[in-house]
Amino acid sequence: MNPIFAPRGSHDEIENGTTFMPKFDADGLIPVIAQDATSNEILMFAWMNEEAVARTIETGEAWYWSRSRKSFWRKGETSGQTQTVTEMRIDCDQDVLLIKVKVGGDGGACHVGYRSCFFRTVPLTTDAKSAKSPLTLEIKAEKLSDHGHD
Amino acid sequence: MNPIFAPRGSHDEIENGTTFMPKFDADGLIPVIAQDATSNEILMFAWMNEEAVARTIETGEAWYWSRSRKSFWRKGETSGQTQTVTEMRIDCDQDVLLIKVKVGGDGGACHVGYRSCFFRTVPLTTDAKSAKSPLTLEIKAEKLSDHGHD
Repeated sequence: MNPIFAPRGSHDEIENGTTFMPKFDADGLIPVIAQDATSNEILMFAWMNEEAVARTIETGEAWYWSRSRKSFWRKGETSGQTQTVTEMRIDCDQDVLLIKVKVGGDGGACHVGYRSCFFRTVPLTTDAKSAKSPLTLEIKAEKLSDHGHD
Repeated sequence: MNPIFAPRGSHDEIENGTTFMPKFDADGLIPVIAQDATSNEILMFAWMNEEAVARTIETGEAWYWSRSRKSFWRKGETSGQTQTVTEMRIDCDQDVLLIKVKVGGDGGACHVGYRSCFFRTVPLTTDAKSAKSPLTLEIKAEKLSDHGHD
């Protein structure tokens, strides 16, 4: 398959240039961070291949690549939790995408039932390294924000 | 080396449980999203190995693993742009970390000179897939926010 986007350029072109030349890893994928366009909450993290990036740019709806199902995945196709992309950004190395999205349906993004996939906090503790192995850290869920728009 | 954190449990334990059991990929790494604790702006995306996660939890300062240098990397060690972690979150699959950070030094996070690595926007266009290959998209930088705290 022919590449869809411009080929990778020099270090300077990648970091300081004005041409979109995204890098895909050995599996042909680029990491994508989805952020709520209104609340700026991080909703989820997933992967796109080149074709999914093109579909997202063209349709304005988030298309991902499911590594487990090995198939395209239009977010919300079954759940109704669609993601309309209001902004797409690329990082300095052009190997990570950030999309700002407006969520459809009930406003959630996580299949477990929370608005954000990042619904559990990890405690910060001074005993992490010195504790006996393996270290059991309790992570706490915050049910308060599930399924509600900000 | 013995694992530092609890071993992966069942699907239900991972998604709904209260024990931190992070997944590291074939290279021993987990993706990390760094978000400004005050502005909620996404600052950068990087990787941690298990030891870097433990150091971050223990010290409250962001430690990453540099894939290019193959070494630990305490963010800000040379630039002064340290990241003090105010919150750490794990996603539903426990294979991605989100940290909220307060940035030291001049307030930046990106070596190119911007506050955020995501300083360029990618245009959303209906011609993405139908355009001739390769597609040259112009990405625009926003210099306005470099090196300033919100």
